Amino acid sequence: MKVDGVPYRTIWLAEDGWRVKIIDQRELPHKFVITSLETVVDAVNAIKDMWVRGAPLIGATAAYGVALAMRADPSNKSLETCSISLLAARPTAVNLKWAVDRMVAKLAVLPEKAREEAAYYNALQICNEDIDCCSKIGNFGSQIIKDIWEQKDQNGPVNILTHCNAGWLATVDWGTALAPIYKSHEQNIPIHVWVDETRPRNQGSYLTAWELGKEGIDHTIIVDNVGGHLMQHGLVDMCITGTDRTTFTGDVCNKIGTYLKALAAKDNQVPFYVGLPSSTIDWGISDGISEIPIEERDVSEVEKISGLGENGDSMQLRITPSFSKSANYAFDVTPGRLITGLITEKGICQASETGLRSLFGN
Amino acid sequence: MKVDGVPYRTIWLAEDGWRVKIIDQRELPHKFVITSLETVVDAVNAIKDMWVRGAPLIGATAAYGVALAMRADPSNKSLETCSISLLAARPTAVNLKWAVDRMVAKLAVLPEKAREEAAYYNALQICNEDIDCCSKIGNFGSQIIKDIWEQKDQNGPVNILTHCNAGWLATVDWGTALAPIYKSHEQNIPIHVWVDETRPRNQGSYLTAWELGKEGIDHTIIVDNVGGHLMQHGLVDMCITGTDRTTFTGDVCNKIGTYLKALAAKDNQVPFYVGLPSSTIDWGISDGISEIPIEERDVSEVEKISGLGENGDSMQLRITPSFSKSANYAFDVTPGRLITGLITEKGICQASETGLRSLFGN
Repeated sequence: MKVDGVPYRTIWLAEDGWRVKIIDQRELPHKFVITSLETVVDAVNAIKDMWVRGAPLIGATAAYGVALAMRADPSNKSLETCSISLLAARPTAVNLKWAVDRMVAKLAVLPEKAREEAAYYNALQICNEDIDCCSKIGNFGSQIIKDIWEQKDQNGPVNILTHCNAGWLATVDWGTALAPIYKSHEQNIPIHVWVDETRPRNQGSYLTAWELGKEGIDHTIIVDNVGGHLMQHGLVDMCITGTDRTTFTGDVCNKIGTYLKALAAKDNQVPFYVGLPSSTIDWGISDGISEIPIEERDVSEVEKISGLGENGDSMQLRITPSFSKSANYAFDVTPGRLITGLITEKGICQASETGLRSLFGN
Repeated sequence: MKVDGVPYRTIWLAEDGWRVKIIDQRELPHKFVITSLETVVDAVNAIKDMWVRGAPLIGATAAYGVALAMRADPSNKSLETCSISLLAARPTAVNLKWAVDRMVAKLAVLPEKAREEAAYYNALQICNEDIDCCSKIGNFGSQIIKDIWEQKDQNGPVNILTHCNAGWLATVDWGTALAPIYKSHEQNIPIHVWVDETRPRNQGSYLTAWELGKEGIDHTIIVDNVGGHLMQHGLVDMCITGTDRTTFTGDVCNKIGTYLKALAAKDNQVPFYVGLPSSTIDWGISDGISEIPIEERDVSEVEKISGLGENGDSMQLRITPSFSKSANYAFDVTPGRLITGLITEKGICQASETGLRSLFGN
């Protein structure tokens, strides 16, 4: 997508053909910083310290991490070491393991001298497949937005509420939840996005607002408490979020707070959609609430907040009393019964086993 | 209630018998600052700039503001001027108008030389009536908490989720939503409170956590997105909030985000109570969602955040992109159908016209 009119992906090769360029997302929205990864250690740090985040982008970064390792040393020992260190960077990231395993499977069978080139080729393949997948989600989802616009007699923008960031910054391009919005924008359908701040890490105001703004899409930041009020007053035409993990019964495990918005959508007859690549579907889990373990992250994310000081420097402030405990549950599960539809790269289906099997078979 | 073992109210007379002492709540939770009001201008500033907040405390501060004005000049002109400036300090605060009108009615009929003493007397009356009202809410509500504890076979603490601050800092003492918690704590019922951060002004983490901690009540701060997840997993035994305005049909207008928690409580069969003095009941409004205008506050509350810098100074950071719009709806309406019961100074009733009329007649 575009940043101030210039098209970008979240990860790409430098002109020298081997360095890997990424956006250092820790600096967003206040600074747009591009950085180079030159070693597998750089790639590990980029994943671990969240310079990059979002399952697809983490996978792509890991794939390029393997390529950087193969450039430095294409031995079996190097292949083994780099995959161990990449997998340890964010142990719960399913896409990370998927990408590293795929790279190792492709490379292990090749002679050492062929590995560097094959690694770069396969890393690019992973990126291109992700872009294709997100683009398809966007095309299917944009039809829903277009239908809503027609139902409104093309009167005013389509008001869409989203939570967290499932945009192009989380993928290689297009995004998942935001892909339908970008595709609709390309078709000149007027859109206005309500952007949930998404505490505690503020991915909504830091990332979603940034990417929408840079693409020129009208949006308004709200705190996470506001969505219900907006829906009560007819100010939201649809909700759309991403998902980190989807049960084969249609339950969606996404950023904490998604469930509350889905409840409000149901209570006010607002359609609630989830955009997802089928790689997030877990065919082994039927009850999301009881079976998906919810990550508890460091409480410093609740107790401190980062932002831009008056002097233009990034700073951190403490925002809770020193004597108070806090808890930091990172995800929640939205039952399929609250979800209008799942938008996948294969099409749109009901958030149920029947729905998912109709698209993906058994 | 107590601060580090010492009992306090939120407003009281200094030892000299005329200066009015308040807690400067803008400095909480990081600093406990007591300040003196010496003129009606001080009182106006304290209300306008939110050194004090919460309907009952605003009313009490305004009453003492009239007393300070009468001390300086007990003339009719002074009485008129002070009430105009106090009413303008926060135009939408119903309690402010109620308190000023009551003071003026009491004082206007007295000779000038009797007004100062009568003003101080009536201001204290307003404070004492508020304390009595909150204490009764606490007594009624603590019975609910005790019942839940018995249902749990006195096994572990009663887990209570609250949103915003409806504690003693919002009243003169005890609070409304938190009064039942303080009364139960006095009865040695073990309590653990989940404190919603309450964006954008963070009254939960800044005020509720502070007052619970200072009273020695176990609590955990969570971001506003978390409550639904906790309720799905049986980690909340009841919810209790305050209300700024209650329709005679039982709809509750409270801090933005209350509605989302009430939806989650309903979806998970968690009892959801609201503590209120009957002065918040509006007998002229039947449909809260369509009839109560929702205040939109300055967007700087969404775009900037205050906290404690590393050097121990209070600071403000920008937390949204400079090019993004924001919106700041301050309240939402929770329909009575989602509320288990209203806890008033006259007893507990259903959140419905029948319920309220059973306590308050016609």
